[in-house]
Amino acid sequence: MAKDKVVLAYSGGLDTSVEIAWLKNKGYDVIAVCIDVGEGKDLEAVKEKGLKVGAVESIVIDAKEEFAHDYVLPALQGHAMYENKYPLVSALSRPLIIKHLVEIAKEKGAIAIAHGCTGKGNDQVRFEVGIHALAPEMKIEDPIRDNHWAREDEIDFAKENGIPVPINKESPYSIDENLWGRANECGILEDPWAAAPADAYDRTVALEDTPNTPDVITISFEHGVPTALNGQPMSLAQLIMTLDKLAGKHGIGRIDHVENRLIGIKSREIYECPAATVLLAAHKDIEDIATEKSLAHFKPIVEKQLADLIYNGLWFTTLMDSLQAFLAESQTDVNGIVRVKLFKGNVICEGRKSPNSLYDEALATYTAADQFDSEAAAGFIKLWGLPTQVYAQVHDKLKEDTNADQ
Amino acid sequence: MAKDKVVLAYSGGLDTSVEIAWLKNKGYDVIAVCIDVGEGKDLEAVKEKGLKVGAVESIVIDAKEEFAHDYVLPALQGHAMYENKYPLVSALSRPLIIKHLVEIAKEKGAIAIAHGCTGKGNDQVRFEVGIHALAPEMKIEDPIRDNHWAREDEIDFAKENGIPVPINKESPYSIDENLWGRANECGILEDPWAAAPADAYDRTVALEDTPNTPDVITISFEHGVPTALNGQPMSLAQLIMTLDKLAGKHGIGRIDHVENRLIGIKSREIYECPAATVLLAAHKDIEDIATEKSLAHFKPIVEKQLADLIYNGLWFTTLMDSLQAFLAESQTDVNGIVRVKLFKGNVICEGRKSPNSLYDEALATYTAADQFDSEAAAGFIKLWGLPTQVYAQVHDKLKEDTNADQ
Amino acid sequence: MAKDKVVLAYSGGLDTSVEIAWLKNKGYDVIAVCIDVGEGKDLEAVKEKGLKVGAVESIVIDAKEEFAHDYVLPALQGHAMYENKYPLVSALSRPLIIKHLVEIAKEKGAIAIAHGCTGKGNDQVRFEVGIHALAPEMKIEDPIRDNHWAREDEIDFAKENGIPVPINKESPYSIDENLWGRANECGILEDPWAAAPADAYDRTVALEDTPNTPDVITISFEHGVPTALNGQPMSLAQLIMTLDKLAGKHGIGRIDHVENRLIGIKSREIYECPAATVLLAAHKDIEDIATEKSLAHFKPIVEKQLADLIYNGLWFTTLMDSLQAFLAESQTDVNGIVRVKLFKGNVICEGRKSPNSLYDEALATYTAADQFDSEAAAGFIKLWGLPTQVYAQVHDKLKEDTNADQ
Amino acid sequence: MAKDKVVLAYSGGLDTSVEIAWLKNKGYDVIAVCIDVGEGKDLEAVKEKGLKVGAVESIVIDAKEEFAHDYVLPALQGHAMYENKYPLVSALSRPLIIKHLVEIAKEKGAIAIAHGCTGKGNDQVRFEVGIHALAPEMKIEDPIRDNHWAREDEIDFAKENGIPVPINKESPYSIDENLWGRANECGILEDPWAAAPADAYDRTVALEDTPNTPDVITISFEHGVPTALNGQPMSLAQLIMTLDKLAGKHGIGRIDHVENRLIGIKSREIYECPAATVLLAAHKDIEDIATEKSLAHFKPIVEKQLADLIYNGLWFTTLMDSLQAFLAESQTDVNGIVRVKLFKGNVICEGRKSPNSLYDEALATYTAADQFDSEAAAGFIKLWGLPTQVYAQVHDKLKEDTNADQ
Repeated sequence: MAKDKVVLAYSGGLDTSVEIAWLKNKGYDVIAVCIDVGEGKDLEAVKEKGLKVGAVESIVIDAKEEFAHDYVLPALQGHAMYENKYPLVSALSRPLIIKHLVEIAKEKGAIAIAHGCTGKGNDQVRFEVGIHALAPEMKIEDPIRDNHWAREDEIDFAKENGIPVPINKESPYSIDENLWGRANECGILEDPWAAAPADAYDRTVALEDTPNTPDVITISFEHGVPTALNGQPMSLAQLIMTLDKLAGKHGIGRIDHVENRLIGIKSREIYECPAATVLLAAHKDIEDIATEKSLAHFKPIVEKQLADLIYNGLWFTTLMDSLQAFLAESQTDVNGIVRVKLFKGNVICEGRKSPNSLYDEALATYTAADQFDSEAAAGFIKLWGLPTQVYAQVHDKLKEDTNADQ
Repeated sequence: MAKDKVVLAYSGGLDTSVEIAWLKNKGYDVIAVCIDVGEGKDLEAVKEKGLKVGAVESIVIDAKEEFAHDYVLPALQGHAMYENKYPLVSALSRPLIIKHLVEIAKEKGAIAIAHGCTGKGNDQVRFEVGIHALAPEMKIEDPIRDNHWAREDEIDFAKENGIPVPINKESPYSIDENLWGRANECGILEDPWAAAPADAYDRTVALEDTPNTPDVITISFEHGVPTALNGQPMSLAQLIMTLDKLAGKHGIGRIDHVENRLIGIKSREIYECPAATVLLAAHKDIEDIATEKSLAHFKPIVEKQLADLIYNGLWFTTLMDSLQAFLAESQTDVNGIVRVKLFKGNVICEGRKSPNSLYDEALATYTAADQFDSEAAAGFIKLWGLPTQVYAQVHDKLKEDTNADQ
Repeated sequence: MAKDKVVLAYSGGLDTSVEIAWLKNKGYDVIAVCIDVGEGKDLEAVKEKGLKVGAVESIVIDAKEEFAHDYVLPALQGHAMYENKYPLVSALSRPLIIKHLVEIAKEKGAIAIAHGCTGKGNDQVRFEVGIHALAPEMKIEDPIRDNHWAREDEIDFAKENGIPVPINKESPYSIDENLWGRANECGILEDPWAAAPADAYDRTVALEDTPNTPDVITISFEHGVPTALNGQPMSLAQLIMTLDKLAGKHGIGRIDHVENRLIGIKSREIYECPAATVLLAAHKDIEDIATEKSLAHFKPIVEKQLADLIYNGLWFTTLMDSLQAFLAESQTDVNGIVRVKLFKGNVICEGRKSPNSLYDEALATYTAADQFDSEAAAGFIKLWGLPTQVYAQVHDKLKEDTNADQ
Repeated sequence: MAKDKVVLAYSGGLDTSVEIAWLKNKGYDVIAVCIDVGEGKDLEAVKEKGLKVGAVESIVIDAKEEFAHDYVLPALQGHAMYENKYPLVSALSRPLIIKHLVEIAKEKGAIAIAHGCTGKGNDQVRFEVGIHALAPEMKIEDPIRDNHWAREDEIDFAKENGIPVPINKESPYSIDENLWGRANECGILEDPWAAAPADAYDRTVALEDTPNTPDVITISFEHGVPTALNGQPMSLAQLIMTLDKLAGKHGIGRIDHVENRLIGIKSREIYECPAATVLLAAHKDIEDIATEKSLAHFKPIVEKQLADLIYNGLWFTTLMDSLQAFLAESQTDVNGIVRVKLFKGNVICEGRKSPNSLYDEALATYTAADQFDSEAAAGFIKLWGLPTQVYAQVHDKLKEDTNADQ
């Protein structure tokens, strides 16, 4: 009799290798799926390892451009920053991974999808809510959470089941990364009074070791999409990865955040987001010059909702579709070039120009001559201040009446 | 017959000295009022100059502590950043100045208040709306706007009226400053593609010239008020001014902003806000650890409204009173110490502790043992994802029905 | 030499007839444009009258369906209610009228557009801001505001220029209407303590005179568009006008509102919006059952912004385009039928069904069996309440420590 | 050995009587606590019954005035309407009940608190989150949810344990009520296409049976508190209950709502809120005339958050404290009298006056003379429309350039 199939989100590491064995023991045919969202994985090696540790099929997907366009780009255009600080690294890759897992599960006739999240984080919520949003009847397996496995248990299980155990010293940290950044937690980082030690960082150079000469670059935007670096056209993923290296060299993008997890606790996280930090600043800089005031003043409300939705695992919702429709429309005029100085951890947008610039010196002067007669300003002020002036008149009169009564 | 009195916001500079003469020519007795909000003025010299150029009375007020407590503090606690970028330097001092002008005008029986704003900026709105919110019947004189005076006209008028004209070369910039920062516009800055030149800055050292060793400081907060620097208690104004020098030395707080003015145009501004930049980051850092999630997630909505209200000259409104009541209440738990590294333009909050910390390692572990059984997380996920799961079920069924119909 | 042309928003009434003469006297060739947005005008008569009183060309346009689809529909789908009370009758027709005026002006080579708004209302703002948003260089003529004409002046001018003056007694009210409703102000209505008298109303029967038997109707929605009344398909304008009569007969849609005008004063307005009141209630009722929670909870923020934007004359903005993109996307699932009882001024949505209903009894029960084991709820509660529980733990401990110290 | 004590939220009905027996069987000494929030209970009878069915102590509290002042009043002043439809009847009483239960539990040394909520509703969340917000270590007992008791099981258990079982036919509905309204669900109401039958209503007369003559009443407000009905001063609870009867007689306050529960499902609820419906309309009416525009336009954002917080069981949060501080401040000027016509289900605010009215005819005319010269309006319009005009200029020029290039 054919076995039931399970699709597993596979990374090639110890955790998910152990899960292959565990799911196999449970009676499943395991299909291991590894999706590259920019961690720089050796996909062939992962694929082989998946088969070696027991998967009946091992699938690897290079999803970097898809990730950049369909997930990172809305977050960039929507200036998505959870709690005004975290550019949503891990939270952004989850829906992409889920989409592929579900597609493969449906295609292969799998009855279950397995992930390896712990029971204390946001990712378990994102995975399970996302899977059921796309496949409401799908069974979900979560061996780590269900087994309450600690590290030692896992190693014992690995040895018993012939899974190779890495011999180098275990990292004290728990890390997730993709082309939009790197997230790090656990270990000494759990003490929020302790500065993050040097080994907590990987993609950013310490300020003390950064170059003493800046790089001054240009970033070109077309309808809100970064399309060229220093005038050289690049695909979005390529641009992000190139910029990430450059900005990381200058120590840009370190974030130290005590954040409110969805599951009710505060946690301290260290993020490194060199490219994200530069692109978010540059994109806002073009928007500042090319976006009309009323849109510029409402968009932050949409941005906040977007960030919360992504963080909270609600990517596959009609609210997300509606927010993205707003965002897409809002980017029509976001064209132009920003000149950015990268230096000693700083992102300095020092010049910007746009064919859609609503700040045009010539026009400004022309408009000024035309519009800024003092009567226009005086008239504006009279009506702008009328509600508070009437308020004052009424309340002055009230006071007089009260005094007269006494 | 006694002349009508006018109270003039007097700075000691050419513009407002000329205004004294002009108002005097118009038949007023001029009362010059100079209010120090942290520009580091020689108040005695200003007082004498006011009398010398024609005021019948010259009043000077050191309002630094009042400014820090009643205007800067709500802006700090409310993370007031106009367009998420500008910490509201000039906009914050206007209501304080207005309050004093109106009080003096009422006390002295003046029939008018005069200011020297141009017809193209935000400040004319702030002054006039604010004055009429406190004294709805007060006459307002604005010689600069009414006379359409250019610089040369002003100098001619000054010479004719015996006002001393500064002989040093005129600054190409238009500057306003106080203890919360310095605002600079005009000249070459009007070209948004041009980097701001070195002489546009005054309170911040260029990154290239900053020290190669950081300063690591602590800032203590009590109910959201910064009360000590490196453990040393200070008055708020003193703390801000001390910190401003220190942070400026490290090149912190330069802001280059193309902003939307209230009066309908975009303008490019260069701000320097060393102390503000550090304090805003540190205050948020303590809030991140001590504020409960639901409050932390709504407060930014209040913050945005607060910033807009200040920028738009609507300080003296019942909305402002209501927002401040919210803010005051929100600060109850904002106690603790942040350790901040100041280095090469960066403000790095590298450690924070609070008696009200909701991230307490011991408690977290205790709570974890108690709360984080996998069933709690699993149950949470089921209900959190239920709306989207039901949505998917309904829409899957709809598709089946449609297919069955065909 | 050819005269300059002006396009005039022409209604056929005394005001705009006088304006034709005045503009002609000023040297213009006047093109009168009358646009029917559902007031039930005799367009042919208006056209002739325009020519008779001096226009060189008289154009009439039946824009009812265009108005319903392009302006009323977004307002309906966005539940646009200014200050949570007024469904934006006049404000909605302005952009449509402006669009046509500008198109005709460009086509005919006119150098100016004229409207007849007074200097105290919102409409002057809407017209002029809208015109300049579509034709930034267009000259605007506003004879009423510029001449400070009172009624008597107008009549004198009319007589002198051979404009027929209506002989019937002048209405004490100032009225504007279209198919979305009727707005009434002035006269006795200016006393907010006085109840609006019977003659202030026109499209709604007084409750005392409404039928003693209800009408129970169904309204069908497809993607948020009302498409049928009692199962009978109708064009949108037709449906609104049919429903308006029916609901008006039952006394539905009277609104008495002291509102904040854009130009800084409060005014008291009496609106009658029979169809709008029914459709807004019915549309929300379908949304309540077919829209997923996260979208349902954010949409009101968009709705509030939409209403403000329309009221404030900012239809032709990129923010409006972005909000409409959001709204359009949000209507995907808004399909179904509402059964509405119209009776004695009440709109009672007493039943609703939708193929997209997320409340499906069968499914609910099925889901319940599946999901609503007590552990899921218990787990949800634990994590939902965790932030406040941790808060309580920390603060209980703080109190203990404080007590121990004493 | 002394038994552990449990405090039970006791209603006197079958459910909670059975719980007394069950908790007693489990080894507890049960303290029954019945709190009257306006259901019109015979408190003495409930007290006796509690003892009769096994409680060691039976406490009854008349909390109507406390409920009105500390819970209903903020909801009234904050126009708290969940999903813009439901005035939060049950959700409002929960924190009051919780507060008393916790106080008694602490005073009596109880180790647990018991409630009788089912596993599918919002109330279980509100009770447990609220209890742990005030007493984080308190044990919670929920016999109904834990036992998965259906009605028959409960009756069997009652008979076995000597609990009197009501002999009259069981209501098909599940009802909760207090002085702010009555909530009804279950039975035929679960079909959202079915109109609620007559027996679903209790506090409101069917429109068909309401009087043919209206009642016209006045409601007086002082700082946002309703203080008198028809000029007769009343305590808040008394005023609400008196008004409730009167408005109910006119069929006012029926609400039919398919709402999104916190626990992830949609449910259909029938509410009756006669007094709430009248007071919410009247309070908004006074606010419309006495509240300055900027406050009036931001307050709805606070109101929405307030409603969500109450609905979601998060009363005991620092966000609630902060929102209430905002609200309290916002009520300073909310003074005056509204004349309301109650007729055939309609609440018609037909007149309003306030010493703080910002709409004062005399003043308006005075102000008009002063302010409404056409130049002020014209100037306002120029600057209000400047951003969109500049936008149009830039984009017209872009089009020209593009055309010229071709």
